[in-house]
Amino acid sequence: MTQLLALAVEAARKGEVPIAAAIIDANGVVLARAHNEVEARRDATAHAELLVIQEACRMRGEKYLGDCTLYVTLEPCAMCAQAASLVKIRSLVFGAYDPKGGGVEHGARVFAQPTCHHAPEVIGGMMEAECGALLKDFFAKKR
Amino acid sequence: MTQLLALAVEAARKGEVPIAAAIIDANGVVLARAHNEVEARRDATAHAELLVIQEACRMRGEKYLGDCTLYVTLEPCAMCAQAASLVKIRSLVFGAYDPKGGGVEHGARVFAQPTCHHAPEVIGGMMEAECGALLKDFFAKKR
Repeated sequence: MTQLLALAVEAARKGEVPIAAAIIDANGVVLARAHNEVEARRDATAHAELLVIQEACRMRGEKYLGDCTLYVTLEPCAMCAQAASLVKIRSLVFGAYDPKGGGVEHGARVFAQPTCHHAPEVIGGMMEAECGALLKDFFAKKR
Repeated sequence: MTQLLALAVEAARKGEVPIAAAIIDANGVVLARAHNEVEARRDATAHAELLVIQEACRMRGEKYLGDCTLYVTLEPCAMCAQAASLVKIRSLVFGAYDPKGGGVEHGARVFAQPTCHHAPEVIGGMMEAECGALLKDFFAKKR
């Protein structure tokens, strides 16, 4: 998560919302890491989590990532939560909670739906203060 | 929708779940069309809707598609519904309802959440029988 914070800081420097994610396999190997690229790609779906999930599938040539953990500095939105479910991510570890846009512990609560076919183990709030402070600083400077 | 059905049939021929989607702009121009590519890309997130949203953003160089309509043969899942919300899609038209995996009228009901920042106009059930029959045939043959 400390490495992801550094990557999120880099994102902010480029004008991207400072959120970073990584996919780690069962052996602790980092398969993919990315920060948000909404501005660089001019695509509002270019969230860090979706980018690393797609990159990890590409790298492995496998449509599922059942042995992997998704680390991300902010609670995923419904899109990214459902993407994690679709690829059968084993665990999700996130930093700050996101009452406004989160889709795990808030809003759509994707994994809690009876129609959710795969729900990963979820650990929220890891380095919550640091992850949240980055976002607060970023938006404070933008205003 | 008739053209999308043909594209979905093509998907089935390739062993993909027969779902197809397109993005049409305010002038009726097709910006992107795709069928599911989960098998071809070996990526369980390669849903038709996400592919066309990302392709339309790429084509236009714009992160939002506020004047566009997303057509798809099946009710989108939570990932694709949230992706449509993120790019501010104006309207969503879908074919068959999906009580097991849908995230619009079922499950996560993404657009109905108080935290949903943009909800498109939704028209469900267009050529519902034809769109649903394709999927039923596909899964019947697989079993």
